[in-house]
Amino acid sequence: MRPVAIRNILRADPTVIARLGTAGTSTAHEAQGRAGLAKPYLRPAWPGGSASGSAVTVLARPGDNWMIHVAVELCQEGDVLVVALSSDNHDGMFGELLATSLKARGVRGLVIDAGCRDVAALEEMGFPVWCRGVSAQGTVKASLGAVNVPVVVAGVAVDPGDVVVADDDGVVFVPRSSAAAVADKCDARLAKEASVRERLAKGELGLDIYAMREPLAKAGLVYLDSAADLDDRR
Amino acid sequence: MRPVAIRNILRADPTVIARLGTAGTSTAHEAQGRAGLAKPYLRPAWPGGSASGSAVTVLARPGDNWMIHVAVELCQEGDVLVVALSSDNHDGMFGELLATSLKARGVRGLVIDAGCRDVAALEEMGFPVWCRGVSAQGTVKASLGAVNVPVVVAGVAVDPGDVVVADDDGVVFVPRSSAAAVADKCDARLAKEASVRERLAKGELGLDIYAMREPLAKAGLVYLDSAADLDDRR
Amino acid sequence: MRPVAIRNILRADPTVIARLGTAGTSTAHEAQGRAGLAKPYLRPAWPGGSASGSAVTVLARPGDNWMIHVAVELCQEGDVLVVALSSDNHDGMFGELLATSLKARGVRGLVIDAGCRDVAALEEMGFPVWCRGVSAQGTVKASLGAVNVPVVVAGVAVDPGDVVVADDDGVVFVPRSSAAAVADKCDARLAKEASVRERLAKGELGLDIYAMREPLAKAGLVYLDSAADLDDRR
Amino acid sequence: MRPVAIRNILRADPTVIARLGTAGTSTAHEAQGRAGLAKPYLRPAWPGGSASGSAVTVLARPGDNWMIHVAVELCQEGDVLVVALSSDNHDGMFGELLATSLKARGVRGLVIDAGCRDVAALEEMGFPVWCRGVSAQGTVKASLGAVNVPVVVAGVAVDPGDVVVADDDGVVFVPRSSAAAVADKCDARLAKEASVRERLAKGELGLDIYAMREPLAKAGLVYLDSAADLDDRR
Amino acid sequence: MRPVAIRNILRADPTVIARLGTAGTSTAHEAQGRAGLAKPYLRPAWPGGSASGSAVTVLARPGDNWMIHVAVELCQEGDVLVVALSSDNHDGMFGELLATSLKARGVRGLVIDAGCRDVAALEEMGFPVWCRGVSAQGTVKASLGAVNVPVVVAGVAVDPGDVVVADDDGVVFVPRSSAAAVADKCDARLAKEASVRERLAKGELGLDIYAMREPLAKAGLVYLDSAADLDDRR
Amino acid sequence: MRPVAIRNILRADPTVIARLGTAGTSTAHEAQGRAGLAKPYLRPAWPGGSASGSAVTVLARPGDNWMIHVAVELCQEGDVLVVALSSDNHDGMFGELLATSLKARGVRGLVIDAGCRDVAALEEMGFPVWCRGVSAQGTVKASLGAVNVPVVVAGVAVDPGDVVVADDDGVVFVPRSSAAAVADKCDARLAKEASVRERLAKGELGLDIYAMREPLAKAGLVYLDSAADLDDRR
Repeated sequence: MRPVAIRNILRADPTVIARLGTAGTSTAHEAQGRAGLAKPYLRPAWPGGSASGSAVTVLARPGDNWMIHVAVELCQEGDVLVVALSSDNHDGMFGELLATSLKARGVRGLVIDAGCRDVAALEEMGFPVWCRGVSAQGTVKASLGAVNVPVVVAGVAVDPGDVVVADDDGVVFVPRSSAAAVADKCDARLAKEASVRERLAKGELGLDIYAMREPLAKAGLVYLDSAADLDDRR
Repeated sequence: MRPVAIRNILRADPTVIARLGTAGTSTAHEAQGRAGLAKPYLRPAWPGGSASGSAVTVLARPGDNWMIHVAVELCQEGDVLVVALSSDNHDGMFGELLATSLKARGVRGLVIDAGCRDVAALEEMGFPVWCRGVSAQGTVKASLGAVNVPVVVAGVAVDPGDVVVADDDGVVFVPRSSAAAVADKCDARLAKEASVRERLAKGELGLDIYAMREPLAKAGLVYLDSAADLDDRR
Repeated sequence: MRPVAIRNILRADPTVIARLGTAGTSTAHEAQGRAGLAKPYLRPAWPGGSASGSAVTVLARPGDNWMIHVAVELCQEGDVLVVALSSDNHDGMFGELLATSLKARGVRGLVIDAGCRDVAALEEMGFPVWCRGVSAQGTVKASLGAVNVPVVVAGVAVDPGDVVVADDDGVVFVPRSSAAAVADKCDARLAKEASVRERLAKGELGLDIYAMREPLAKAGLVYLDSAADLDDRR
Repeated sequence: MRPVAIRNILRADPTVIARLGTAGTSTAHEAQGRAGLAKPYLRPAWPGGSASGSAVTVLARPGDNWMIHVAVELCQEGDVLVVALSSDNHDGMFGELLATSLKARGVRGLVIDAGCRDVAALEEMGFPVWCRGVSAQGTVKASLGAVNVPVVVAGVAVDPGDVVVADDDGVVFVPRSSAAAVADKCDARLAKEASVRERLAKGELGLDIYAMREPLAKAGLVYLDSAADLDDRR
Repeated sequence: MRPVAIRNILRADPTVIARLGTAGTSTAHEAQGRAGLAKPYLRPAWPGGSASGSAVTVLARPGDNWMIHVAVELCQEGDVLVVALSSDNHDGMFGELLATSLKARGVRGLVIDAGCRDVAALEEMGFPVWCRGVSAQGTVKASLGAVNVPVVVAGVAVDPGDVVVADDDGVVFVPRSSAAAVADKCDARLAKEASVRERLAKGELGLDIYAMREPLAKAGLVYLDSAADLDDRR
Repeated sequence: MRPVAIRNILRADPTVIARLGTAGTSTAHEAQGRAGLAKPYLRPAWPGGSASGSAVTVLARPGDNWMIHVAVELCQEGDVLVVALSSDNHDGMFGELLATSLKARGVRGLVIDAGCRDVAALEEMGFPVWCRGVSAQGTVKASLGAVNVPVVVAGVAVDPGDVVVADDDGVVFVPRSSAAAVADKCDARLAKEASVRERLAKGELGLDIYAMREPLAKAGLVYLDSAADLDDRR
């Protein structure tokens, strides 16, 4: 890891980012072939928030948030700050003051593979954060990391400028190069889901809508009228 | 595990189920001799919901929700779907569309030893889910499991038709055969607790209400006036 | 561990406790040199509560809440009950009835290195609890522990009478002897933070406010205009 | 849970138990349809041991090993003691003295959903233990549980008299009623595996031995000569 | 936390330390009233080692082993280095080079609430380490901590000069002031255990040796001849 | 994720791979700037093994080892098979038969972000495996993944053909493009460490060898003669 801060990165088209944000994490994840989903230990610091934007990436050391301060200056309106750690850590590397600073620059939210603090204030400010957990543990400013380099966050390889989509279901990253195509697939999925939802609400079964009965039978599923045919409990 | 789906199961009396639901998990768990409680990693996907009903059980493989689709058809008004996994998994095996389908059939909620997704939509629909966690991770429909067979969910052996009681404190399973007796014990406990609560609120001590002073002294508890008698810190 | 209950402990000045409570966990933790913070697995049982007070300490065995009943009598108005366990356990050792009893005595809240139950009722009562998790698992009253002895709670050594500060960010313990000095430092930090917050909100950068640019350069941070200079992905 | 100790249980045929023990956990688990495997957190306290026998079951409370003492008397030559807990606990509920007692009765080993201690002595004695972990934490003898009742151990429902098979790969339980049939299937699997192993060792591919090429192609697997066809990194 | 290094500490009598080491962790833990045991996640980096000595304590920050280098100089023949962390971390803060340095000074082993590395070399050198895990992750030397101050290690409050006893069962700390008394109790326990072990090996039951039959009956344990009396599976 | 299998990948120079293997994980990790280390939950299935080679990568679904069978054919003498999962899973996706097949092709070992089984047989064969854990849980062959695509394994982004270095300290990945440069730095480190080791063994202090005394003093470290100057216990 070289201690560098890259000033300029390529970003996706804002309208594409907005469409991915509207689709949400589950749809975006499915639309890009079930890829790009952060491990589910990344959870919202407060419920009901959502964010989409371009990833400004940070690689930081455990218990040291110096590089987040460096990254603030390199963020633009519409970005989401994405912080990876060189090893697992839950310290509260981010709080109200950094959120104030990011908000002043138009940053949409934070994804951090560590802890955050001041959660009540973050919710009041409406600044959404996805993190490993909440911890008041303070951090030092002693060791360098990097800004806007490729990182791995919660099991996903992320490049600066990739699209971040985050909501109550978690966080998905969409590579910048495929963002437009994924947004198109999202729209198609959403349209299809609306129709399926309506049919399901009327009582139609997924077994029939998705034509599963034949493949189930072929795979060997047997229907029995009662448990009398099962003689042991496994 | 044989790949079977049992169509018909015995269910408990709806009025018994309702009484157990009113009593709630803590009381039901105590009333049946501190048994039947799911491990506490099963948590509500959204706060404030509760459900009681007859268990329709599913045994599914990790990352594969095919059997949930099979189970929907076998659910009735008043049931709670209970999904066990053949090995530990956090994938989001259940979301808004399946909830729409279950709700259309009058199902009261879902208990799943895996993840769920679309939590914001689930809360908006008022469909309660108890799960290991939230994950947008999509699942395949490739391998068979079973429906309405005995399963182990979060450390509890559950038979189809057992009564499920779930609220913010977790999930309790009551065997169908003992449900009425447990409901009676719940009523007795609730009556007794109301009286104790009133006395405690007035400042009476549990030590006196439960007559603990003598057994504590017998067990060897010593009261000291101050810490001066303790010479080391352990 | 001797099975003792100490009746009388020294407590900090109530106005000092109140000032620490106003400062909150993050500030109190920083003000005492980043010490005294409970591990972040201790979380509020319901969101939005806060508490500060004098620690009445309990050492209990897993699955046994007998000593909590003993401790109730030794609590005063303005105390926070702090329960340590002799080994890790998630059972629901505390619920609505004990909360009713503590509330009747003016106790401000509970910190327990185990589980609690009746969370919906606790929230309704406005009785805040910080715990490992929620579990309806009932407990016995069979083995002795101790009350008002030094304990270790979630990684922090706590003496009876230490000040407890707890909010949505977690739990901090401040030794009684240094509480006034820490409260003074909290006030100084809060004043300074207010000014920094205002500057950050106007768009000024932490890099400049905290004069980080020179130390960053000295430590070797290199700014690059674009990623073209980075030839491999790590 | 009623506090009972059942004196007499039905056991499987010793020659069937021996055949299952020879087959080992992986084979026994596969032979009974991938069922009965304890969660993998149950690990050998020391490497290289193995055991098979009839389950004498115990239900104990966290931190309390009183019921293990009760169970010793009810064990026979060829049994394996199986201890379930009413809630999760890692305390060292079993050590050298209890092992000495069990060994004197011809017991083959211990499976415990909690901790054990004296691991060096257990290895020296050659008494195998499968457990959650090692802990010197001592336990009380204060609360009743039950002996020879159905229990859930590490996610598996176990009846007294079920066959236990344990080795370095973990622990499998086989219901007494199906033990003979599973042993037959184990023998068939072992014979088949020996032949496959020989072919694989000579360099033949599983793809060909198991005739996977056609189903893979049908499922849509595409072979590419080089990564040049993959334009993004996901 | 003030950044201090205390040069001189009081140590226990070497013969007392040796007697505690001979007794081992389980016996020492019991002898001091089931206190002082580190949480069981602290495990030996390699099996079969043991150590006893006087604690030289370190408080370090996550991912930073600078203070360990400071502590080496303050260690004497017969000490055990004990490293606490200001927040949870698994990085490999200790390896072969530091072990070489400690061994040259006669240090008996290391207890660290973090990771270590070079485990193969440590085993070859015969230098025992108890740690959270193994990680090759390198650490910085950037932030101060403290040496020979009171710390909390794996849930135990440890003062410099306390006696450390560590073996395959884990780690126990005995306060210096009570070390001699605990050693005496250890000797008494060991003598008693030898006699019990002999009786158990001959087939006598713990139920009789410890006179448990009457208290069990009094507590309500019921013996049944067969499972026919149990009508449901819980 | 497209279901592809890439036949041909670029591999590093075998002599470079051998040099990295000799250096070992800790040294290789340090030499490439403390990068490329797999999270420490990946542990050897049996102790004492080591492996280095070119990564043949697999992306598989939880509980499904079909793609491992596909990958075998694409492995060459000197490769290490590296298996990533689309979501967390501990099932035993790899055992003796697959190891026999890989060994017949000259494969050096396996790194798998899931479980393995048949550990006793793997140790006897001398086939090293690094994994999340041991589980006998069997897997299906139902869903496609990919072979020789970029993956994320235990937190590290790995490209096919990257160099894998694995031993008792864990697993490090070195990008193919920088492998030779990293090997050179490893040699330099090893030479330097040998000299430092010798000096430390003679009793010289790291404080002096690394010239730490001045920076420690500058950072504010204060030496005190005794604990008398510390008036509270934090």
